Amino acid sequence: MVSWFRSPRPRAPLPRLRSRSSHVVATKVDFAELAPDTSSYLGLVAYLQLGFFQSISMVSAISDLAAKETLSTAAGFALAKHHGVVAEIRRRGEDPTEVMAPYVSRVDDFLTLTRGASVNENLLSIYITQGFLDDFFIRLSDGLPHDQGARYASLLGADSGAAGIVSLLTDAIGVDPKRAHFLAMCGRRLLGDTLLLAQSALVLDGHSESDDARIEPVFTELIATHTRRMDALGLTA
Amino acid sequence: MVSWFRSPRPRAPLPRLRSRSSHVVATKVDFAELAPDTSSYLGLVAYLQLGFFQSISMVSAISDLAAKETLSTAAGFALAKHHGVVAEIRRRGEDPTEVMAPYVSRVDDFLTLTRGASVNENLLSIYITQGFLDDFFIRLSDGLPHDQGARYASLLGADSGAAGIVSLLTDAIGVDPKRAHFLAMCGRRLLGDTLLLAQSALVLDGHSESDDARIEPVFTELIATHTRRMDALGLTA
Repeated sequence: MVSWFRSPRPRAPLPRLRSRSSHVVATKVDFAELAPDTSSYLGLVAYLQLGFFQSISMVSAISDLAAKETLSTAAGFALAKHHGVVAEIRRRGEDPTEVMAPYVSRVDDFLTLTRGASVNENLLSIYITQGFLDDFFIRLSDGLPHDQGARYASLLGADSGAAGIVSLLTDAIGVDPKRAHFLAMCGRRLLGDTLLLAQSALVLDGHSESDDARIEPVFTELIATHTRRMDALGLTA
Repeated sequence: MVSWFRSPRPRAPLPRLRSRSSHVVATKVDFAELAPDTSSYLGLVAYLQLGFFQSISMVSAISDLAAKETLSTAAGFALAKHHGVVAEIRRRGEDPTEVMAPYVSRVDDFLTLTRGASVNENLLSIYITQGFLDDFFIRLSDGLPHDQGARYASLLGADSGAAGIVSLLTDAIGVDPKRAHFLAMCGRRLLGDTLLLAQSALVLDGHSESDDARIEPVFTELIATHTRRMDALGLTA
């Protein structure tokens, strides 16, 4: 069994959500039980979408005109998801700024870690991290009260403009096939950072074996989807 | 009479749209006659709105969480205007990238010139330049075929989120009233740069007296609105 708690390279620990161990039934293998409370979920997701919006906007700013069209559209999609989640926070009578505040440094660190040195690395980062994390938070919404979880999943499942980004990356690799090896390597590093951010959203009971048993099937499936994302670029995962 | 063609300080000339002097009746004082053809108008406006979106996104990236909410909303409004204008370009059977291309360097230069060194300067720049230029292009739409011009004016007249930006700036000035003098000075420089960009969109007949006669009443009115914008911040225009 792969343990998701052992990082492939040393790094500073990410802050954890507060435990809700009283809710966890140790014998039941159920990923949904690892979901945080609704406010924490929405705060992290809202600020993460704002972060994706910022990252995509920044790549757009340094891209050529044709790519700007694709990227400004993708930025708009991330912003719409952010605003959708903010509306859900307000609907609960909570203040979006307060609810997002605990996740600012964690998400900012994640975005800094996953920022690339070139336009193509940044495009790959957006495609890989956003694709994985949207899927992850859709899965995690199963652990929230049913009607709410379904609404959040629907919000996050909306188009993110990934097809346009795939097209830009495929063109870039076509122009210079040497980029493929480097981007494949970047993809593996991005997966590692993304898994750690995803894990940080889970409320774990601290027993790594029982946590692993809950997490593994879902992460295995999300990683398979990640592999298909890399395949779509002609890259080895 | 103030001549809009004499800049208060030396700077590189902005590129001009092609002349359409054959359409200009020198004796009629009519601002609408200075409007460029529809494609040129849409190309410049589309790329300018994309630029506002980028500028606002960049300030959002370096702002605190509460300001990010205001700014991401304003960025979304600019992006919506951009997408609205792009849709109008497509509706004419034209390619948005080709139609925007001639204005990239002019707008990029303008955004570089009007970028500030601090968050507050950048907020002021967005508020002043976007406010003025949206008004200007709404006025200029009078010179386009009627039904189209009215649609573009309606697009540009949509909310830009200025109230939120005014609130951020008012708070900043309240915290440190010494900022008022500096921001008032910035506002005057921004007005100069903005007038030059606006002027570059006009198709002039090259006789500065007749051009001035057409431009002056409208620019006088737009500057009065600019003064009211500065007043709203408690700043001297």
